[in-house]
Amino acid sequence: MKKKPSERPSAEGRNRDGNVIAAAISVMSEKGYSGTSIQEVADRVGVLKGSLYHYFSSKEELLFRILDESHSESMVIADAVAALGLDPIDELLEYVTRQSVWYLANVERANIFFTESRNLTGERKALTKDRGLQFERHVRDLITAAQESGQIRSQLDARLLTRFVIGAMNNVRFWPSRSAGSFSDEQLVSALVELTFNGLEAQPAAHD
Amino acid sequence: MKKKPSERPSAEGRNRDGNVIAAAISVMSEKGYSGTSIQEVADRVGVLKGSLYHYFSSKEELLFRILDESHSESMVIADAVAALGLDPIDELLEYVTRQSVWYLANVERANIFFTESRNLTGERKALTKDRGLQFERHVRDLITAAQESGQIRSQLDARLLTRFVIGAMNNVRFWPSRSAGSFSDEQLVSALVELTFNGLEAQPAAHD
Repeated sequence: MKKKPSERPSAEGRNRDGNVIAAAISVMSEKGYSGTSIQEVADRVGVLKGSLYHYFSSKEELLFRILDESHSESMVIADAVAALGLDPIDELLEYVTRQSVWYLANVERANIFFTESRNLTGERKALTKDRGLQFERHVRDLITAAQESGQIRSQLDARLLTRFVIGAMNNVRFWPSRSAGSFSDEQLVSALVELTFNGLEAQPAAHD
Repeated sequence: MKKKPSERPSAEGRNRDGNVIAAAISVMSEKGYSGTSIQEVADRVGVLKGSLYHYFSSKEELLFRILDESHSESMVIADAVAALGLDPIDELLEYVTRQSVWYLANVERANIFFTESRNLTGERKALTKDRGLQFERHVRDLITAAQESGQIRSQLDARLLTRFVIGAMNNVRFWPSRSAGSFSDEQLVSALVELTFNGLEAQPAAHD
């Protein structure tokens, strides 16, 4: 791997990065990527614009870091669930549960994740796309394994089931702010998981 | 109802509006609302910026019209399905099918619909929110009626089922561009509807 021009090894440096990213998430989720200025992010952190550029070369790099961190957190969740050594269907169910909980706890970040990636260019765009496909592949592999062991319906192509499951997860961030506002996060996730996995269930033999 | 300041009764006028809205959808879905300029919309229509302001008072009005038309088209679909006089569950299924087909045929418009409404202000914001709630209520009423007639599971609150069904529909616009790219729109919608309604199905009596 190429060495990055500016390394950030110290705890202090990581903490400052974290503050900048949190401020960028807050501004971007309010005004959108195009409506966000580095000046406003710097104001919110309480530093001069120039010193912010010391850590992030551009607004695009900030966006990339937000998306990259989100992908990394998904992978941490996926790895932790994989380490439990469950059956494919149970691993999938546990992963969907934990990932949905994460979305609800990180709604602003998730909104940016799903709406702003089109603003990336070049290598950052390619890297982000690759990580998205890696995430998709992880879910599809679990679904394929669950189909092969007869735990979920195999009449439908695994790619369609994958879209259904990922779509349901991605959508949970909209649940609290709409008409389902009087439920706890746990109730929302539990209903989502129940409905989604009921949809996937293997069908009993046809009656006719 | 209050009379609007500028009426647009002629077919020619409606057609020009349609061209401007189509151009605005194309620019906004590429660059986001904040990144869109009226100048660029005018360039794409092939008219001067000044003449575009003759029909739309602001960029915000253009956005409002895009969202308002989308709501109207949903209501046309809902009314057409209601006129079929089906059972609640069949009406819901037919509505979800037709609305999903519409989303797939109008992906750019749907993306704007779901990501840019935060940019509205004042009365336009309130009107758009009201119409969104009206849409939500329509789906919830069908779900409640289907629950009452025992056609779908009644253990879960109708508001949660509504979020699930609307979430599944809203998400179908992402299906073609991801890993499910080799299926026709019909196959995508048919899989979505099958999985969603399988999830809603009334459960057989518990075994234990």
